[in-house]
Amino acid sequence: MLRTHNCGALRKEDIGKEVLLAGWVNRRRDHGGVIFIDLRDRWGLTQLVIDSNQQEIYQHANSVKSEFVLQVKGIVRARPEGLANLKLPTGEIEVAVSEVIILSESKPLPFEIEEKNETDESLRLRYRYLDLRRTRMQKNLMLRHQVCQSVRRYLSERQFIEVETPFLTKSTPEGARDFLVPSRLNEGNFYALPQSPQLFKQILMIAGYDRYFQIAKCFRDEDLRADRQPEFSQVDIEMSFVEREDIFELIETMMKNLFYEVLGIQLEAPFPRMSYDEAMNCYGCDKPDLRITCTIDDLSSLLEGNIEVGSKTDSWNGLFLQDWKGFSRKKADLLSQMAKNAGVSLSYIKFANEAGTSPLKNKIAEQTWRKIIEKYPFQEDSLLLIAWGDRPKVLAFLGNLRVNLGEELNLIQNQFKFCWIHDFPLFEWNLEENRWDSMHHPFTAPLLDQLDQLNIDPSKVKAQAYDIVLNGFEIGGGSIRIHRSDLQEKIFQLLNLSEGEIQQKFGYFIEALQYGCPPHGGIALGLDRIMMLMSGESSIRETMAFPKTQKGTCLMSGAPSPVSDDQLMVLGIQLKKKKEPRSTKDGS
Amino acid sequence: MLRTHNCGALRKEDIGKEVLLAGWVNRRRDHGGVIFIDLRDRWGLTQLVIDSNQQEIYQHANSVKSEFVLQVKGIVRARPEGLANLKLPTGEIEVAVSEVIILSESKPLPFEIEEKNETDESLRLRYRYLDLRRTRMQKNLMLRHQVCQSVRRYLSERQFIEVETPFLTKSTPEGARDFLVPSRLNEGNFYALPQSPQLFKQILMIAGYDRYFQIAKCFRDEDLRADRQPEFSQVDIEMSFVEREDIFELIETMMKNLFYEVLGIQLEAPFPRMSYDEAMNCYGCDKPDLRITCTIDDLSSLLEGNIEVGSKTDSWNGLFLQDWKGFSRKKADLLSQMAKNAGVSLSYIKFANEAGTSPLKNKIAEQTWRKIIEKYPFQEDSLLLIAWGDRPKVLAFLGNLRVNLGEELNLIQNQFKFCWIHDFPLFEWNLEENRWDSMHHPFTAPLLDQLDQLNIDPSKVKAQAYDIVLNGFEIGGGSIRIHRSDLQEKIFQLLNLSEGEIQQKFGYFIEALQYGCPPHGGIALGLDRIMMLMSGESSIRETMAFPKTQKGTCLMSGAPSPVSDDQLMVLGIQLKKKKEPRSTKDGS
Repeated sequence: MLRTHNCGALRKEDIGKEVLLAGWVNRRRDHGGVIFIDLRDRWGLTQLVIDSNQQEIYQHANSVKSEFVLQVKGIVRARPEGLANLKLPTGEIEVAVSEVIILSESKPLPFEIEEKNETDESLRLRYRYLDLRRTRMQKNLMLRHQVCQSVRRYLSERQFIEVETPFLTKSTPEGARDFLVPSRLNEGNFYALPQSPQLFKQILMIAGYDRYFQIAKCFRDEDLRADRQPEFSQVDIEMSFVEREDIFELIETMMKNLFYEVLGIQLEAPFPRMSYDEAMNCYGCDKPDLRITCTIDDLSSLLEGNIEVGSKTDSWNGLFLQDWKGFSRKKADLLSQMAKNAGVSLSYIKFANEAGTSPLKNKIAEQTWRKIIEKYPFQEDSLLLIAWGDRPKVLAFLGNLRVNLGEELNLIQNQFKFCWIHDFPLFEWNLEENRWDSMHHPFTAPLLDQLDQLNIDPSKVKAQAYDIVLNGFEIGGGSIRIHRSDLQEKIFQLLNLSEGEIQQKFGYFIEALQYGCPPHGGIALGLDRIMMLMSGESSIRETMAFPKTQKGTCLMSGAPSPVSDDQLMVLGIQLKKKKEPRSTKDGS
Repeated sequence: MLRTHNCGALRKEDIGKEVLLAGWVNRRRDHGGVIFIDLRDRWGLTQLVIDSNQQEIYQHANSVKSEFVLQVKGIVRARPEGLANLKLPTGEIEVAVSEVIILSESKPLPFEIEEKNETDESLRLRYRYLDLRRTRMQKNLMLRHQVCQSVRRYLSERQFIEVETPFLTKSTPEGARDFLVPSRLNEGNFYALPQSPQLFKQILMIAGYDRYFQIAKCFRDEDLRADRQPEFSQVDIEMSFVEREDIFELIETMMKNLFYEVLGIQLEAPFPRMSYDEAMNCYGCDKPDLRITCTIDDLSSLLEGNIEVGSKTDSWNGLFLQDWKGFSRKKADLLSQMAKNAGVSLSYIKFANEAGTSPLKNKIAEQTWRKIIEKYPFQEDSLLLIAWGDRPKVLAFLGNLRVNLGEELNLIQNQFKFCWIHDFPLFEWNLEENRWDSMHHPFTAPLLDQLDQLNIDPSKVKAQAYDIVLNGFEIGGGSIRIHRSDLQEKIFQLLNLSEGEIQQKFGYFIEALQYGCPPHGGIALGLDRIMMLMSGESSIRETMAFPKTQKGTCLMSGAPSPVSDDQLMVLGIQLKKKKEPRSTKDGS
């Protein structure tokens, strides 16, 4: 070992000891013929002192710059009276250095390691090894490690076993494009990197493993909007002989355990549960941020026919804000304009001086007006926003507004609010391709009492699918799966797959279902997003060591990069020739 | 939950309880109007009893076949006197069934789940979900889970943090071919799947993480000889400010801990250490199986000049076998022939009736003969094999023979014998390409006192590299790394990389070394091979859920498979046209 202690270890109790330390020069300052160096490692900082009396060492230490790596020998001593730094765990001591070895030098840095202002992200990613030295990134990655350890420990205690599933797989359609890997030993054929281990975990249930988990890497070749990464991690879970509530309980207890172990936060469970329809009606979206307490109200029965606002409309909805002092005429106009852009009409009732005023007042029947005023706990500066029009548009608009006002009016409490959304529609209509798509994935079981509807109106069928939502982010989703081969085939047919496609893509899986498949279900949690929320970051890139840009490149190593013709040759592929005229079939 | 207990849970104490069980029909037998079903899950077997009195249930149960999945309700009762099965944890009870639900049926099986004779492996892989139901595979995968948990717990306690490194990376040369992944967003460019996270873990040391580990998936596109897989797992470890012995201690303690926790076996540490040269001299290979105690002796000083056997030779070596009763003239001829095939001469001294006999006897000087007889603890049926010729050939031959005889003569003790091999040569000569290759990898540090030799005779330079060997298998290897950019560049130059290649492939890494790199080192352990040895299997395929064949195919899912032209189109690649005449440059 090149050290006897790390840089966060020494205390008053160590005074008098001769120690060996090693680490990075965090800061060097000269002060009246004395050099002070803060030596840094993962565990902390220790102050080194070199007196100009020790001429040779002093000279040597004088050449030292930021981020040099040193090994020093010295004696631990108390800092002079009044100079202890009580904010630092090692702040009561310093090390009087008797020997300095420069293990490694550093060029001048492209940016300061700990900078007040945010460094440009592309520079941070280019020099990721410097960026990762920052306290914030170190904290984030250590938190991630703790989270993974906690999750693994918990699931093991619940008798889950972690099974590694392959990376070189056959494509399974999860609604995104596969990354392909050309096979050299099987020229002309391709592996796909897994979009998720979905079929493997179901196969493991058929194989009787009963409780499977994996912290699994998944791959999706998407156009990287916003905060996506081509590779991401999920806590992947599957159980046999269970119902929805068993999964909910498992995950709630896991989250309670995790947040307590890692952040010291006591969560309340069970988490609220609401159906997809309820979420859409009350929050205008399927991932409600429950830190904001106000909800969207249905005012249709109250207002329909009791208000004169021109054209007929199919929905009236309200959003009540208890206290909005800053609300002004100007703001009202702005909101109206936003509503108009969203294809929705908007007005309001404002309460002040013990009475309500509204642009709508003269258009509302007196009795209805009274009913509204009674319905809400109006007080000085309360405001009721009323929107009407096409129902999905009204709900979406108020849902967005709710979140934006939540931020603007500081209604968001600093806490972790989970909820479950369940009973999603089984299908959604794919306008482009004029057919049904699975809303979750094609292995999701319909609600059993709605099986007949599959033949009548698939849009009406709900799925045994659920999402877990935290602070307005979908952090996971799952379902009870189909465990009967006939139902699985029927679903594939409804998705417009031909018999040939079903056989070619899923034949082996349908066959597996015919050898004794237990009822089973599971969930996949988005680890990166959970880490983002737990560490208070606003991008998942801050939660992983080596993220890629929106273009899918690694700015540090330069991946992806060109390869030699020979490498392609042995794989039996070649680059598409750009200049050649394309056949019409190729399209763009 | 579809069950109140699993199939391994019920005991005498549960007698009288009404229970719900679910599982697979392991066996059904009819016995005088009574149906007995052994219901199976991961945890065990429970005997179900259905009397013909309960006509409806009896009828239903009568249709049940092997591997059907059932849910049953019933009352736990004691088995009749004298019929308890004490080998089974649930053997004192049975469940008198009052309700049977068939959750899922099974077609007739392609092979028996628990078969006495080994089923053909390709059939097992084709129906892997059935194969994975076998007790042996369940044990192997659970053991693997326990091993991973134990390793993670241990390393976390030692303040290592697990960091996930990317899968879509830039190629790093580890002596094998990369799997390539075409990039759609960066057309014409390719990611490589990592052969190991080598550079990322070194970057993490530069970033100050100090102690990193990962159970990492690695990929090598090799021709799959023997027991290789295109994707495999390694326990990947890196530490800063350490020397070789720190790594040894870490791994020894980890192994002790692991074998005790998981197998209840107490290992002795420290493990024996020997240099590469010593291993080659004493065992004829760099992965000696220390369960076999005999070693190769150097008899050159004894025999050279004191024996007449024709042509001059550069090495005389012996292998002494204490007790080989079955050694015969026929066997001697066979061994001689094997030796001849290996380019080596072989003879022997056999001890019987208190004297030695040998075809060589008349050719050896009397004094030398006496010295040999004195050197060894000869007794009845002892045998000394003597081989001579070209030194590397002699050592390799005797090394192989040692292992083969170890098996043949039952000299292999049933235990786990570890050792460390260190001070490997830094380079080996690549005959084909007429240049030096790194024996470990190009990031391995030379022994510091041999740096000058780099300029004089690279073949003489030893590396700070080490392997860990268990029972004759190399289960891991590592090194102290180069942490100076100038030395790193020099090594690349010695490997015949041009300045341009160095920059293009490793420029970013060499730059990273210039921003304060700590001395560091690490190791990577082959998890699959360790699992194979711990579970007593002879193939790593038995230690993973979904292995591939030698041709790199998954017999269950059919991966790899053809993909559509559209999929290739968006990636900017196409299949090489087979019929087109090739340019001469293309070769075969």
